[in-house]
Amino acid sequence: MSDDDDTGGGRRQVRLTVEYDGTGLGGWQRQLNAPTVQGHLEAALSQLLATPTTVAGASRTDAGVHALGQVASFRTDRTTPLQGIRRGLNTLLPPQIAITEALDVDDRFHPRFSATGKHYRYLILCRPDRSPRWARWAWHRRGPLDRDAMAAAAAALVGEHDYAAFRAAGCTARTTRRRIDAIELSSPEPGLLAVDVQGNAFLRNMVRIIAGTLVDVGEGRLAATQVAEIIESLDRNRAGQTAPAQGLTLVAVRYDGTRVS
Amino acid sequence: MSDDDDTGGGRRQVRLTVEYDGTGLGGWQRQLNAPTVQGHLEAALSQLLATPTTVAGASRTDAGVHALGQVASFRTDRTTPLQGIRRGLNTLLPPQIAITEALDVDDRFHPRFSATGKHYRYLILCRPDRSPRWARWAWHRRGPLDRDAMAAAAAALVGEHDYAAFRAAGCTARTTRRRIDAIELSSPEPGLLAVDVQGNAFLRNMVRIIAGTLVDVGEGRLAATQVAEIIESLDRNRAGQTAPAQGLTLVAVRYDGTRVS
Repeated sequence: MSDDDDTGGGRRQVRLTVEYDGTGLGGWQRQLNAPTVQGHLEAALSQLLATPTTVAGASRTDAGVHALGQVASFRTDRTTPLQGIRRGLNTLLPPQIAITEALDVDDRFHPRFSATGKHYRYLILCRPDRSPRWARWAWHRRGPLDRDAMAAAAAALVGEHDYAAFRAAGCTARTTRRRIDAIELSSPEPGLLAVDVQGNAFLRNMVRIIAGTLVDVGEGRLAATQVAEIIESLDRNRAGQTAPAQGLTLVAVRYDGTRVS
Repeated sequence: MSDDDDTGGGRRQVRLTVEYDGTGLGGWQRQLNAPTVQGHLEAALSQLLATPTTVAGASRTDAGVHALGQVASFRTDRTTPLQGIRRGLNTLLPPQIAITEALDVDDRFHPRFSATGKHYRYLILCRPDRSPRWARWAWHRRGPLDRDAMAAAAAALVGEHDYAAFRAAGCTARTTRRRIDAIELSSPEPGLLAVDVQGNAFLRNMVRIIAGTLVDVGEGRLAATQVAEIIESLDRNRAGQTAPAQGLTLVAVRYDGTRVS
């Protein structure tokens, strides 16, 4: 367990659901020279509880990635009511970060190691001109996308596989076997394509490489029938491009059998 | 016709559809001391066409109000192809403003005076905690809203009436009779309430006062049955609060019988 996963001392553990607009933030993980979600959250908590407090997070989202349902936890000896924690944090946090839920949880809970699944959504805006409405939340592609080919490629990505071909160069995960439960394509409004990816866990940049590969298929640079070979190759160079951060949102983290006290 | 409505000289008239994120902008209308949509558009056009060029707009949206389908036009002697105008402007305009369509139009067209209808959408986020996802696009209300009461109030607002009770103090319109064709309430996603208002024309702040009145009804400060009397009173003090600018988007402007050349 690295220093960043440490939830510190204290007899009580509190689990937080965190929503953020990742634009302009250096991602989840605490950094010396950039504002991050973990950094803002620890500063706000330390002020609220009047004692240095660290948080652990479920997903180390990259710079620019958003969240509707990131999960974090901290330990404390304070008896501050949950509503006071939630509201107090929302007063202290900057506008781009908010707490939407606070729960007391079992001592054994860990936001990352207890997680049994995650749901990410990648948004693609497909139209000739850039969009001020979607600039912060979607990847803009000018040309048409072949939805049927993308759906076939998505189906080939689902399952339990060694996804070594779908991880960033700097990924340090010991094993690269993961399970993708579903990849669903939908159109929340005209011109907008949503790619919903659910799985047990993800390698570094995995969802962004999946989205980039689907767009490469949709634009004809890769064939849907190549996806199975790409997975088998275990070769990052065979998979598609890494889609940009701003299209990605961590929608929810799933926990099974976690006792919420 | 005021100076702001002047589309200048030139034998050709071009109509533009403009999308913008109004956050941080001083609204549509050209101002000396604030960045505005008209100001940015005129600067970009003047640079692109290498001659001072002015634009007229369909709706003088307030500071902070957004648009998906604002309509503007300008006159020019340049023969620059429409695609070159659209793409050139999108390169020169700041990220929060984009052109989504450019058309050659009849000399008699005027974006404001030729308009036969407008469609505005007002978004309300109804949940206990503020939302980074919706902060720029919706009005946040913490308490529950009575949707049935709001729908009854909306129905009472539809029709052709003197809407003097629903205009800002500074409104200079000569007549205050307008026609509202429809006010529809829907929920694009959980917690989010969209109020779609369509009518022939609107007084200053009229849609924001309608949205504020509906929220006052939804939160119990006004009764839906009072709406008819409020309209009849012609008294701004009887209607509800003015909802904040960031929840409002000009969705589209309608033109009937306008010949597009």
